[in-house]
Amino acid sequence: MQETRLDLARIRAARRLIDPVFLDTPLYRCEALESDLGCAVSIKLETANPVRSFKARGTEVITSLLADIRSTAVVCASAGNLGQALAWSGRGRGLDVTVVASRFAPAIKLDRIRALEAKLELVDGDFEEARERAVAIARHDGIRLVEDSLDLETCEGAGTIGLELVATEPAFDAVLIALGGGAMATGIGQVLKACAPEVEVICVQPKGAPAMTRSWRERRVVTTDSTDTIADGVAGRRPIPAVLDDLLLLADDAVLVEESSIVAGMRLLLDRADLVVEPSAALGIAAILEDRDRFAGRHVATIVCGSNVDPAAYHRWVGAASH
Amino acid sequence: MQETRLDLARIRAARRLIDPVFLDTPLYRCEALESDLGCAVSIKLETANPVRSFKARGTEVITSLLADIRSTAVVCASAGNLGQALAWSGRGRGLDVTVVASRFAPAIKLDRIRALEAKLELVDGDFEEARERAVAIARHDGIRLVEDSLDLETCEGAGTIGLELVATEPAFDAVLIALGGGAMATGIGQVLKACAPEVEVICVQPKGAPAMTRSWRERRVVTTDSTDTIADGVAGRRPIPAVLDDLLLLADDAVLVEESSIVAGMRLLLDRADLVVEPSAALGIAAILEDRDRFAGRHVATIVCGSNVDPAAYHRWVGAASH
Repeated sequence: MQETRLDLARIRAARRLIDPVFLDTPLYRCEALESDLGCAVSIKLETANPVRSFKARGTEVITSLLADIRSTAVVCASAGNLGQALAWSGRGRGLDVTVVASRFAPAIKLDRIRALEAKLELVDGDFEEARERAVAIARHDGIRLVEDSLDLETCEGAGTIGLELVATEPAFDAVLIALGGGAMATGIGQVLKACAPEVEVICVQPKGAPAMTRSWRERRVVTTDSTDTIADGVAGRRPIPAVLDDLLLLADDAVLVEESSIVAGMRLLLDRADLVVEPSAALGIAAILEDRDRFAGRHVATIVCGSNVDPAAYHRWVGAASH
Repeated sequence: MQETRLDLARIRAARRLIDPVFLDTPLYRCEALESDLGCAVSIKLETANPVRSFKARGTEVITSLLADIRSTAVVCASAGNLGQALAWSGRGRGLDVTVVASRFAPAIKLDRIRALEAKLELVDGDFEEARERAVAIARHDGIRLVEDSLDLETCEGAGTIGLELVATEPAFDAVLIALGGGAMATGIGQVLKACAPEVEVICVQPKGAPAMTRSWRERRVVTTDSTDTIADGVAGRRPIPAVLDDLLLLADDAVLVEESSIVAGMRLLLDRADLVVEPSAALGIAAILEDRDRFAGRHVATIVCGSNVDPAAYHRWVGAASH
């Protein structure tokens, strides 16, 4: 395998920096999903923790290292979950945390960031504008900027999910990973390629936010002018070149799914698995729904990566019809 | 401490017989609940596994032992969750599993028992009639009868939750445990009294199914003629004397809660913790809601013990109002 920026030994080392409350998350086969999906499905559940997403695996690594060098402040741009995770991890280590987010981010994510005592700054634009503003704050204040997916700690933290996936027997035939900036896909992908190369690594992105998938397919950075998806957690427009380079070496496929499939995936996870999830966490199920033949008879694992969702929006999407 | 039927060494041994998919479940503080409840609350989540309840901890122990002696069949009465767990554990060990349940049990529980290839027999009455029928089957067929709470393995399996609770720091001030037959309360209670005697062990039962709580208070078996609660998982009428004797030594308190509090607890777990749970799993939250002063400023853990709930009923109870 060609070299990526990632390294298995560093991912193993990252694991030791993470609060155990975020590690060894449930991984279980969910048979009740299987008649709908036509394949064996295992859930890796990253929502039963204090910040309800996988993002704290990365922020634990970053803030541990910052505490070691006696840093006092840190800033990030966030679609919501990274900010909440950084706020949680930073609070426990005495760091002043600033989060920059779009004012259009789900209110529940913004409220939970505030509740964790972080300073929250809102920008009028989308996540890409928040990124620019976070860069400016970091420069002005001379503090550490956390850049999701670009900063190796974010990928390495997510990569610890991969360590847990390969620790179980039997191995899966494929792992379906929500694709946004690429931290989760490259982190987990690195571990799978190193430890279980027979497992297919499939990234899933909404058709309404396809920049990274298009970039992967064309093997060059492709940006978009806008996004249009309910999966707010993965709605980036400007892939990071270094992350794309890694993804080109680690992903076996990248697929795009319809909004209606994301909603159908959320509904299935509610009705069959009793799980309330945010749209990004249903991308893997959506991908199976759109291509049952591809997965028929195989054993697929998917990462349920977050459950920070506005109740009103959730109800609008998933509705009462299924009840 | 006076001797109960239970023993810490046996609970530790039980742990080694349980499939790891049921062990080391998430235990995390849920700050989003705290403004509503006025105390620190940690969730012990027993629903992210193949049978969506804690009951497999016990059935794993029983079926392991049965497989060792080359048994081929087993029968139990169940409100739904034990049957599903026994079906799962028995299938993996080549046992023919018969489950006797009330035909009024939630359809989703009955469907999931059938889906796990168990033989399901329905009785016209409630759980107590199912118990009688299961006894008759066991006698007629000469096979092992699993009696929830009476059989030590069911208590010891549940007791492994206690081992996980006392392994964390800091200790909790109180643990709130749903009370039905008593397996979970006595199993966890045994471990807490042995390893963390300063932790208050509080059992919670619905006012509509108060037999064991009344028995605990009067220190003698009190039966009821009927039950009236949505918490189907704990709706027994005839406490088992030996289990009551243990509970008298292990529980610090037993409280009864209103149906409206159970619903409010389910709604809070949905809105604040993104958790869909069955009514029995919300009893602990209900107890806090009914007595905020008692828990104010303390750190309470509660076992979210099951999430097998009919979607239609759930929607009717929790409704759309909160969304």
